[in-house]
Amino acid sequence: MTLTLEDCRARDAADPLRPLRDLFTLPAGLIYLDGNSLGPLPRATPARVAKAVEQEWGEGLIRSWNDAGWFELPRRVGDRIAGWIGAGAGEVVATDTTSVNLYKVLSAALSIQAQDAPARRVVLSERSNFPTDLYIAQALCEERGMVLQLLDDAGDLGAALTADVAVLLLTHVNYRTGAMHDMAAVTRQAHEAGALAIWDLAHSAGAVPVDLHGAGADFAVGCGYKYLNGGPGCPAFAWVHPRHADRFRQPLAGWWGHAAPFEFTPQYRPAPGIGRYLCGTQPVLSLVALDCGLDTLEAARPPGGMPALRAKSLALTDLFIALVEARCGDAGFTLVTPREHARRGSQVCLSRPAGSYAMVQALIARGVVGDFRGPNILRFGFTPLYIGFEDVWHAVDRLRQVLDTGEWQRPEFNRRQAVT
Amino acid sequence: MTLTLEDCRARDAADPLRPLRDLFTLPAGLIYLDGNSLGPLPRATPARVAKAVEQEWGEGLIRSWNDAGWFELPRRVGDRIAGWIGAGAGEVVATDTTSVNLYKVLSAALSIQAQDAPARRVVLSERSNFPTDLYIAQALCEERGMVLQLLDDAGDLGAALTADVAVLLLTHVNYRTGAMHDMAAVTRQAHEAGALAIWDLAHSAGAVPVDLHGAGADFAVGCGYKYLNGGPGCPAFAWVHPRHADRFRQPLAGWWGHAAPFEFTPQYRPAPGIGRYLCGTQPVLSLVALDCGLDTLEAARPPGGMPALRAKSLALTDLFIALVEARCGDAGFTLVTPREHARRGSQVCLSRPAGSYAMVQALIARGVVGDFRGPNILRFGFTPLYIGFEDVWHAVDRLRQVLDTGEWQRPEFNRRQAVT
Repeated sequence: MTLTLEDCRARDAADPLRPLRDLFTLPAGLIYLDGNSLGPLPRATPARVAKAVEQEWGEGLIRSWNDAGWFELPRRVGDRIAGWIGAGAGEVVATDTTSVNLYKVLSAALSIQAQDAPARRVVLSERSNFPTDLYIAQALCEERGMVLQLLDDAGDLGAALTADVAVLLLTHVNYRTGAMHDMAAVTRQAHEAGALAIWDLAHSAGAVPVDLHGAGADFAVGCGYKYLNGGPGCPAFAWVHPRHADRFRQPLAGWWGHAAPFEFTPQYRPAPGIGRYLCGTQPVLSLVALDCGLDTLEAARPPGGMPALRAKSLALTDLFIALVEARCGDAGFTLVTPREHARRGSQVCLSRPAGSYAMVQALIARGVVGDFRGPNILRFGFTPLYIGFEDVWHAVDRLRQVLDTGEWQRPEFNRRQAVT
Repeated sequence: MTLTLEDCRARDAADPLRPLRDLFTLPAGLIYLDGNSLGPLPRATPARVAKAVEQEWGEGLIRSWNDAGWFELPRRVGDRIAGWIGAGAGEVVATDTTSVNLYKVLSAALSIQAQDAPARRVVLSERSNFPTDLYIAQALCEERGMVLQLLDDAGDLGAALTADVAVLLLTHVNYRTGAMHDMAAVTRQAHEAGALAIWDLAHSAGAVPVDLHGAGADFAVGCGYKYLNGGPGCPAFAWVHPRHADRFRQPLAGWWGHAAPFEFTPQYRPAPGIGRYLCGTQPVLSLVALDCGLDTLEAARPPGGMPALRAKSLALTDLFIALVEARCGDAGFTLVTPREHARRGSQVCLSRPAGSYAMVQALIARGVVGDFRGPNILRFGFTPLYIGFEDVWHAVDRLRQVLDTGEWQRPEFNRRQAVT
């Protein structure tokens, strides 16, 4: 295990992914360990967005729906995402938000089960799932007369997958802990119990290997602005296994999901396949930025693609864990993220009985951007596209400084902001 | 009525709104009569979007959710829209798409009526309403066991507002015909019949006077990329009368509509008021562009605000109608848009038994951008912010040229594109 700054530098020098960091503009001196919340700006994005604004919108105007391919963007970008999640061409759309897409796919899953297995009345998830997933599930369960059952411990999944469960709704990599489910094993478990499996890939797409077809998953949604580097609030995505895609309308049956939207007929006729998971007109500028974000991932294909990204991600998180334990072992941190590689996403979370929020703020003041997740978690994301081994060394070094100086106890680091 | 080019020029010279056209970048020589589909690029937008991309995202990164006010954008931009539709501060959010917002407000309206008037099983609309409104209504009616009843003739509204009607769902200005409803009178009629009134303001906001509170309306949605000049696919908006805003969750209960989203609690607790009509993370770049679009409308306040815009819009559409009748009276056009000012939006539509599609294409080739709406409508939008009287003269002059040359009969003008 590398534990000196010199060793870290040597590992960066030997890293075939290292040149990819030049695809991003990162503020000088900043160590950005929050790409799991908002990926940084790709260097090519400003010019591409400016082209969309000035040429496509400014000069092409309405003609750009055809001439600049705006209308096809959700499917074209969706096809690009498909390659990173084990989905096929024509099976993914980039559109709307994760929450809205979750509503669509959970609606569809419930409609399927209402027909195939009407006695099943339970949607099963985890209490630690990202809240919006639970909120959307609560709303839909209320609407459909279903029950949302939340597990406190993922280990209880087997016992909880009873004959009552219609749908299992899980996030692949937990946003708070970084713990990762075995998608293939859990999906198999769900199917054996007669449930459909929906996966939220918000912290997975572009971050860890995902093979939706290999796992036999039923539905998936995910986020564009985290590891896909698509920019603040850019569209999310939805995937539906082809075996389900044509079975049901989803209730957000807007005109973009119509088989022939520009016939302007009063009767809805759903587009075949994933097309019906589109709804309204999409934010072109943000979709164009997402397209640029995907270019940065594509650039990782020659040096090894997802296996290389994953190997480096694990090396980075291993190093961070080892350095924290070696250098901050006295600070009362507990490692929240699983040590086992197969159960770890691309982030490391530490907890501490008190002071976690302030320590995150003090670290930010020292140029290490992670984030806080209540009640007591310091969260650090490690994106192998632009984070190096030396960055990890400095991040822990600055954490040591924050501890040594005690500066995290200053009042200014305890003032909560609207968005944490 | 002004009918010579010189008179048109004189009217432009005397027009206090004339300087506002310099707020836009319009391609040289182009007469853009399609701002009712996609508003043109405001001159200030490229720099503002570039700032959001390069500084706020590139340098501020995740901190910009607080520091650049990203998180507040949907409410802040919503407040700006409120001023153009007769809504109060804190009553509008700019978010998602018109279709998605319609789903939210129609859901809420149906929930209210399910409680207050459960015997009412009908959602009433017009067959000529914009299709996405009908598709969303169909989906929700199916889900809630309601019946969607479509009027062929708005004149039958009184008779159709029976004791069965729960919700009246109308678009204020018809997208195909430019015909405008009397919002106050129709809302009164709906209320007297015990129905709630939802208004789609896609072709109204920023285009015609709208007074939601004055009309006593219940819910409204609208579009940001038409007369609000917010750019391709920028977020739409939703308004709910305060008397209804706190009554129900809407089913798209995502985390942005939570009372305290960053507490990350597993139980949904709706934000008070319009806040609960937010759902997921919004596309910041497109929201920022919408904010710039609203600046162009704000610039019209000193020279008279909406009354001045409306007066000029009617003068422009009057002039267009008069010129078409004077110069193209032999061409077989029928005026589709009402002559009566009180019933006219900010567009003029002509129909013709045949050749309408090709004529629109031939006009575009001559630098007059309108659009075609099936089966036979030539549609021209007149936005007083940037369209002048001379533009109207040239538009009709070029239509005359298209007719005289017969060039619209060329095969290339009959080839249909994906987006018409």
